[in-house]
Amino acid sequence: AVIGCDAAAQAVSAAVAHARELGVRINVAVADSGGNLAAFLRMPGAFVQSIDIAIDKAYTAAGFGFPTGDWMKVVGHDEGMKLGFSARPRLVVFGGGLPIRIDGVLIGGVGVSGASEEQDEACARAALAVIGAEVTQDNKQG
Amino acid sequence: AVIGCDAAAQAVSAAVAHARELGVRINVAVADSGGNLAAFLRMPGAFVQSIDIAIDKAYTAAGFGFPTGDWMKVVGHDEGMKLGFSARPRLVVFGGGLPIRIDGVLIGGVGVSGASEEQDEACARAALAVIGAEVTQDNKQG
Amino acid sequence: AVIGCDAAAQAVSAAVAHARELGVRINVAVADSGGNLAAFLRMPGAFVQSIDIAIDKAYTAAGFGFPTGDWMKVVGHDEGMKLGFSARPRLVVFGGGLPIRIDGVLIGGVGVSGASEEQDEACARAALAVIGAEVTQDNKQG
Amino acid sequence: AVIGCDAAAQAVSAAVAHARELGVRINVAVADSGGNLAAFLRMPGAFVQSIDIAIDKAYTAAGFGFPTGDWMKVVGHDEGMKLGFSARPRLVVFGGGLPIRIDGVLIGGVGVSGASEEQDEACARAALAVIGAEVTQDNKQG
Repeated sequence: AVIGCDAAAQAVSAAVAHARELGVRINVAVADSGGNLAAFLRMPGAFVQSIDIAIDKAYTAAGFGFPTGDWMKVVGHDEGMKLGFSARPRLVVFGGGLPIRIDGVLIGGVGVSGASEEQDEACARAALAVIGAEVTQDNKQG
Repeated sequence: AVIGCDAAAQAVSAAVAHARELGVRINVAVADSGGNLAAFLRMPGAFVQSIDIAIDKAYTAAGFGFPTGDWMKVVGHDEGMKLGFSARPRLVVFGGGLPIRIDGVLIGGVGVSGASEEQDEACARAALAVIGAEVTQDNKQG
Repeated sequence: AVIGCDAAAQAVSAAVAHARELGVRINVAVADSGGNLAAFLRMPGAFVQSIDIAIDKAYTAAGFGFPTGDWMKVVGHDEGMKLGFSARPRLVVFGGGLPIRIDGVLIGGVGVSGASEEQDEACARAALAVIGAEVTQDNKQG
Repeated sequence: AVIGCDAAAQAVSAAVAHARELGVRINVAVADSGGNLAAFLRMPGAFVQSIDIAIDKAYTAAGFGFPTGDWMKVVGHDEGMKLGFSARPRLVVFGGGLPIRIDGVLIGGVGVSGASEEQDEACARAALAVIGAEVTQDNKQG
């Protein structure tokens, strides 16, 4: 199952709306469960480099199914895995990417970049909330 | 001047709405006048390869300011330019990408890929229309 | 729907078996319907460059759903599309890649490279045949 | 000497069979002693990002001739080498890749990705075992 077109559009718009409330400028992407880009939105003035970071956070979260902010928790005990996964192209090992699950099924990922790690992830949670995706307690704590 | 966030979101949604009317599946992208991705939307089932083609059509049209379908008209008389520009990374020389102009000012580009050249460009024109951008006579004829 | 693991393995082995009968050396790849690599097999001594060509033929056929050898028939009337699609990264516009359809459903693609266009495609058809995929009349004629 | 076509096919199938026993989903690759991809197999649902990680583990092990999990042991004492090798494109510095040696001769490498480091390496050892390649004591302990 992949996320639908309307849901993906709503998700990125909700992330932008939340960024406006926070007074920050972000780029936000949604990837489908195949890792392909499903939706994207950029606020003018957001960091140019954050475009690809947002897309890659969505790609990473959609592929592995856990928040990108959890990577150090998952591999941090092992120096080789820590350095090795950090260096993989398009794999982002810091916060701002969350998996999208509906009724327990992974249908994609959302990635936000442009503000602080906490603000990016708050915008990503706003994207999940508007489409009724699961926001786990773990995600809430960033 | 760059295209705003809400206008970019409306543009990609309008292209998708037009694709639904036509019964085709597309990917659609908007680039700002700096060539950066501003908005994107994918209909599930559209060709995977068309994701990057749509993004690159938007990038090409935003950068050069004329429809991507006009490239052969512009460089076709010169074999070196014809082959050379066709081979440039991210430069698309066939239809489906249109510049976005408001009051004569180039603020970005829209690119559509997934259906026929004519259908792609019709979806791109629907994106221009919804945000009040100029659709030239030339564009109307594809 | 994506092609299964055992079917993908059988498909690449059947292509190699056919290449041995023909006395040629090939690389053969299967991509799933998401365009991801599903199986691959290389005969020692086959052209090194043909590794990626085989993978990209499978990727192209899986994404667009028609034989890679049909590209010139599809876009050859239009100079921009002909040159433009030819230049897209990973998009192969000559023969040797075939879509994999079971009961009319596109589940992936197979790509062969290393011999002549006709021999490559014959090996690809052997891959389709062993897993009961549809070999259209068009495909049979290369 | 390079690994043969049939041996490479058997190796990836054996890794998948072992993954099924473990109840995990993997991608598995074999590279020849020239570093070229020789065989590959993907279990549907395995992490998409693991496709390239498996291929790169096989490439790394085939090139350097020791298990990818040994990199930190080999370069960990030197901060420059540790960070520098970790960041090299396609060089994987964590477990899951093993060299393929027959009678002491390096003929390739096998790489597995998709499960835990220990499970990945167990699947890689199953690949070595089925083709009669040497599994060193060091490899056995992961």
